[in-house]
Amino acid sequence: MSNWFTYFGTELLGSMLLIILGNGVVANVLLKGTSAYKNANFLMIALGWGFAVGIGALVASALGGVAQLNPAVTLAFVVNNWTKNVGSWNLLPIIIIGQALGFLLGQIIVDLVYSHQIVACFARAKKDFATENTQPVLAMHATVPQTKVTWSNFLMEFVGTAVLIITILGVGKLGIANGMTFVTPLLVMIVVMAIGCSLSGTTGYAINPFRDLMPRLVYQGLLSTSFGRKGLNADWKYSWVPVVAPLTAGAIVGACFLI
Amino acid sequence: MSNWFTYFGTELLGSMLLIILGNGVVANVLLKGTSAYKNANFLMIALGWGFAVGIGALVASALGGVAQLNPAVTLAFVVNNWTKNVGSWNLLPIIIIGQALGFLLGQIIVDLVYSHQIVACFARAKKDFATENTQPVLAMHATVPQTKVTWSNFLMEFVGTAVLIITILGVGKLGIANGMTFVTPLLVMIVVMAIGCSLSGTTGYAINPFRDLMPRLVYQGLLSTSFGRKGLNADWKYSWVPVVAPLTAGAIVGACFLI
Amino acid sequence: MSNWFTYFGTELLGSMLLIILGNGVVANVLLKGTSAYKNANFLMIALGWGFAVGIGALVASALGGVAQLNPAVTLAFVVNNWTKNVGSWNLLPIIIIGQALGFLLGQIIVDLVYSHQIVACFARAKKDFATENTQPVLAMHATVPQTKVTWSNFLMEFVGTAVLIITILGVGKLGIANGMTFVTPLLVMIVVMAIGCSLSGTTGYAINPFRDLMPRLVYQGLLSTSFGRKGLNADWKYSWVPVVAPLTAGAIVGACFLI
Amino acid sequence: MSNWFTYFGTELLGSMLLIILGNGVVANVLLKGTSAYKNANFLMIALGWGFAVGIGALVASALGGVAQLNPAVTLAFVVNNWTKNVGSWNLLPIIIIGQALGFLLGQIIVDLVYSHQIVACFARAKKDFATENTQPVLAMHATVPQTKVTWSNFLMEFVGTAVLIITILGVGKLGIANGMTFVTPLLVMIVVMAIGCSLSGTTGYAINPFRDLMPRLVYQGLLSTSFGRKGLNADWKYSWVPVVAPLTAGAIVGACFLI
Repeated sequence: MSNWFTYFGTELLGSMLLIILGNGVVANVLLKGTSAYKNANFLMIALGWGFAVGIGALVASALGGVAQLNPAVTLAFVVNNWTKNVGSWNLLPIIIIGQALGFLLGQIIVDLVYSHQIVACFARAKKDFATENTQPVLAMHATVPQTKVTWSNFLMEFVGTAVLIITILGVGKLGIANGMTFVTPLLVMIVVMAIGCSLSGTTGYAINPFRDLMPRLVYQGLLSTSFGRKGLNADWKYSWVPVVAPLTAGAIVGACFLI
Repeated sequence: MSNWFTYFGTELLGSMLLIILGNGVVANVLLKGTSAYKNANFLMIALGWGFAVGIGALVASALGGVAQLNPAVTLAFVVNNWTKNVGSWNLLPIIIIGQALGFLLGQIIVDLVYSHQIVACFARAKKDFATENTQPVLAMHATVPQTKVTWSNFLMEFVGTAVLIITILGVGKLGIANGMTFVTPLLVMIVVMAIGCSLSGTTGYAINPFRDLMPRLVYQGLLSTSFGRKGLNADWKYSWVPVVAPLTAGAIVGACFLI
Repeated sequence: MSNWFTYFGTELLGSMLLIILGNGVVANVLLKGTSAYKNANFLMIALGWGFAVGIGALVASALGGVAQLNPAVTLAFVVNNWTKNVGSWNLLPIIIIGQALGFLLGQIIVDLVYSHQIVACFARAKKDFATENTQPVLAMHATVPQTKVTWSNFLMEFVGTAVLIITILGVGKLGIANGMTFVTPLLVMIVVMAIGCSLSGTTGYAINPFRDLMPRLVYQGLLSTSFGRKGLNADWKYSWVPVVAPLTAGAIVGACFLI
Repeated sequence: MSNWFTYFGTELLGSMLLIILGNGVVANVLLKGTSAYKNANFLMIALGWGFAVGIGALVASALGGVAQLNPAVTLAFVVNNWTKNVGSWNLLPIIIIGQALGFLLGQIIVDLVYSHQIVACFARAKKDFATENTQPVLAMHATVPQTKVTWSNFLMEFVGTAVLIITILGVGKLGIANGMTFVTPLLVMIVVMAIGCSLSGTTGYAINPFRDLMPRLVYQGLLSTSFGRKGLNADWKYSWVPVVAPLTAGAIVGACFLI
């Protein structure tokens, strides 16, 4: 396979696995009629999202990719000397497009897998979509803040992403041996579990622009169309926070690591 | 020991450990009169199944086996160049028979270990076996979908198994050093925990034909006979899904990794 | 330090850490007036016991010991060619005595640490010690079966210990590199977590004769004396099961691994 | 960067990450209006604190620091031959000041991140600050014993810290290879999880003087000022226990390891 295809394919596959498993655990906990419904607590979501990111990064890096799976991480590497850390600038658009497509496809798959429960949730909500009846479905796509206070939500996403990227760039300095490339994905898994436990409080921790934006697009587009629910509100008003805050954190942490 | 005996014995022992620990955690959570009954949630099942597969694979590979423990994984390796990845075709029937016997024996052991609780459950159910009174016992043998919708259940098993096998075949490309053969079983443990958290929602995640089929046979055969409960319904109507869906995923993912 | 002192001291220290942390988590979950009381479930006990055994074994092996911390494991090594696996027969009594003292001292420490809660529990029980009022205190010493059926309890302890020792002897064949001696304790941690999730159901999983016997002695002796509760019943009638079943499993599994 | 700056900066950054994530998980579980509120149990706190210490130590050591992040650990190394284990005595004040500043800054950040929920908690408490209404806010700063019995609390902190430092000094003897510096932080993560599960019962386990003292200062200073709550009681009467007990344990364990 060409180098081009490897980077594109691994970002796509890794992002896809990440969002299938990541939003899968949210669906499993929140949607009625699943095994974990009313039979799990937030710890399962925090651990489940850690597993999701860990498996996505593990597979992407095992297949020879950069395993960034997150535009905020990519931006941090761009700021932090891209050509030295990642290689050619030509890879940048390939990586970004791979991520975007991976999150799109992955969300469609997780929606198909849980579609029976999604349809049942909408059926129960009848025409009253503005209520909390449809929130479980939105929450298995995009982040839904517990308390909507923009500066507070922004700060949470900023700090959460900063912790993620400090760890990733720090781990990059460990000099892990070649035969142990599985270590970095596992360390990223642990930091995502940490952030899920500690810094998810008020926003639901996107800490990744595409992880929030792409599923939100799917929620709006696919669900509105397939299920004919044109009244669905994907909460676009909030959607800029989990995009801008992580990117800001990525740029700043990336710059700090230049020192 | 001959090579033949090693491959047969490790698949048998590993599968046995896998199903003892795997269905053990389900029994511990669901059967009345156990330490975890009404004192655990789904996370314990998801983690417990991960430990089960991890320990089974760890022991099987430590003793020199291939540690597949799953016909869907075996099929993926068959499609993905068996002779290059595993070796001789002669090993194929040995591995499959070892798995089948391991799941059978392991399930009989876990039934013996929890037999007092199983008998008590049947006693409470009296003659009314068609109810949910006996479901905990069936659930500690075979998967019981939360919502029975064939295409949805099939898809869940397909996607879950695909994630498992993508990870296993991906990890195979990591080039893990000889002194670190314990790493692959631990990575498989993590992906099984991930699938348990995220892709168990509607089916209970067999992701392994024998893990579902063999215990179901034990449920039908042993329990009907020993406990004289001929009215027991092992839900054979559903049983093809957790066999066919994982095998389909194994074949397709195995073929994709030929690229 | 002499070789003698190392083996004795590491078994003592490791066993002490094991029982402090192991029965500590039971106390934390079951005793009224602790942080986890009514705020935790069985998963915390299963994971906590895994951490306990893992830390005990890690410290004992880091300091140059054999880190068996369990007479059933020691017996398995005795049967499985002691002189080849462990070295001199002279070490055998040293190891056993180190374990016994470690469990005794460790249990006294964990009783001191939680003594305020223990006294409060006895105060609430008044003179009615035969009830379930004192059971939390007994349970933070020795195992208390959920359902007392001797053959069933024996089988559970036998199978649980067999899984433990199969894993330990299996892992011994992995050929882990010298610089990675921390791996075996972590693998033992994982199998103890697995057994806690899956094979604790009816007995509380001693899977270690001293882990049950020594704290039971402390319960009888120290508590009867210090707190003047001579009516306390340490359930000696059951106490042979968690001693004999693990030893039987150790001997049989040790012999099987001679093949 | 100069050596001086590395040691100072890594202790500061590591301690900051530690307290952001550590008190973050407490806030997430205890403060009303967060994702984990009434949707998590003590296990999430025990695991979350383990992740917090693990990530702090991982980043600090990846960036070339000593990653002690705890004056009790530092004291143990001082007693246990500082110049041999850590190097120059000149580093000692740098490390201590880095830790102190890290805990201060980190706590301010976690307060900002959860400030909306903190303010709401105070608003609900109105002027009645002496009640349990404000306890969640104090608990996300400093440890709050479940049962206040000084000798019992002291003993708990002493034993907990002793287990921590025995493990750290023990792990130091493992001779972990250069390419695997990530291992020690992960083992520390595990022992902190163990202590959280087992030895948190009556005090909330500070096991680190600065982890308790610095956030308590922030609680008193920043909150009294910013939110004008001069009646706030930071429970200074108890505050010496989580400072003196860990330091005592550090000194004694450090001395024991000289043998």
